[in-house]
Amino acid sequence: MKPKRQGRPPVIENARDRILDDAAHLFAREGYEGTSLGDVADAIGATKAAIYHYFPNKKDIYEAIIVRTLEGLLRSVSAATAQAAGPEEKLARFMTAHADFFENNYDGFLAMLVGYGGMQNVVMIAEAQRLRDSYEHALRQIITDGIVQGVFRQVDAKVTSRAVLSMLNWMVRWFKPGKDRRAASFAQEYCDLMLGGIRN
Amino acid sequence: MKPKRQGRPPVIENARDRILDDAAHLFAREGYEGTSLGDVADAIGATKAAIYHYFPNKKDIYEAIIVRTLEGLLRSVSAATAQAAGPEEKLARFMTAHADFFENNYDGFLAMLVGYGGMQNVVMIAEAQRLRDSYEHALRQIITDGIVQGVFRQVDAKVTSRAVLSMLNWMVRWFKPGKDRRAASFAQEYCDLMLGGIRN
Repeated sequence: MKPKRQGRPPVIENARDRILDDAAHLFAREGYEGTSLGDVADAIGATKAAIYHYFPNKKDIYEAIIVRTLEGLLRSVSAATAQAAGPEEKLARFMTAHADFFENNYDGFLAMLVGYGGMQNVVMIAEAQRLRDSYEHALRQIITDGIVQGVFRQVDAKVTSRAVLSMLNWMVRWFKPGKDRRAASFAQEYCDLMLGGIRN
Repeated sequence: MKPKRQGRPPVIENARDRILDDAAHLFAREGYEGTSLGDVADAIGATKAAIYHYFPNKKDIYEAIIVRTLEGLLRSVSAATAQAAGPEEKLARFMTAHADFFENNYDGFLAMLVGYGGMQNVVMIAEAQRLRDSYEHALRQIITDGIVQGVFRQVDAKVTSRAVLSMLNWMVRWFKPGKDRRAASFAQEYCDLMLGGIRN
């Protein structure tokens, strides 16, 4: 007879991801302050002890959501732009893929935008910063490439990149998923506007 | 001898504005949850009873800050655009005046952007909504006028207006007052970008 193992982790399938999903949903609906670690445990039908096996505290869950969201965003947008032909299509794909990811990962995105500035775990902060830098760099590169290829005017890539991300990120303030229009169709409108400008 | 008046309000010069200024500063620095009505009283050197004479509770102070900020923004931007010659200059003035007001009323602006969605007092909500509608309408009018006059392309005024406000409002996430550059100079860059577009 095998000896009974002490302290064996409670088995939860895909535990980490499920905890982060359910916690993100609770944080989005009830707020970070309004959600306890017990609420997270209840949501996935586990004990608090089971949650503690994966995350030391609520703050670490929150910061793991932020980092996972940034990872997913970078991966998703990179895949979309990789297939694009030229700078104009690359910019359009960047913007629509960002909007799609935002819409499909709304809860995590909310945590990321609200919580980024208040992160405390230095390792997570460094990781989040690295991902955000990569993301912003990818966008600036699209604009710089467009300028070099003569497709775009000699605009300031940093200003342009910040303008694009402002439009996309501000969507969190007025766009709600599950309505008639997809976020990506708004992003495409912004892209057309950015490309063409408004001057006649 | 005159009878001593009962319940005479404690005298605070420009009381309402001072309470709102100091409260906005505390909310910006300590957060809404982290600030008590007693903290507000301490900040202006008054008693809690004196504060209660002007506002029934902390939430009402917060919502009064939001409404006052929207009033100030509308007044300030209207004055700036009134003197402008054509649609291009009007748009530039709208954007730079918005940025100036944001920079000069940073604490109140923060409360307005963070707290707008969570307002509870129906009278204040209606007033805030009315001010925001007027503000957005003024911007759309500038764009529509520009289209009618043939200065602007046949863009969608609603999309364009939302793009402009997204860029301006997102500044709250990265711009800090008191550094080298004024907020208005970033707004001018955004305006130039919007006017000219990036396509060559």
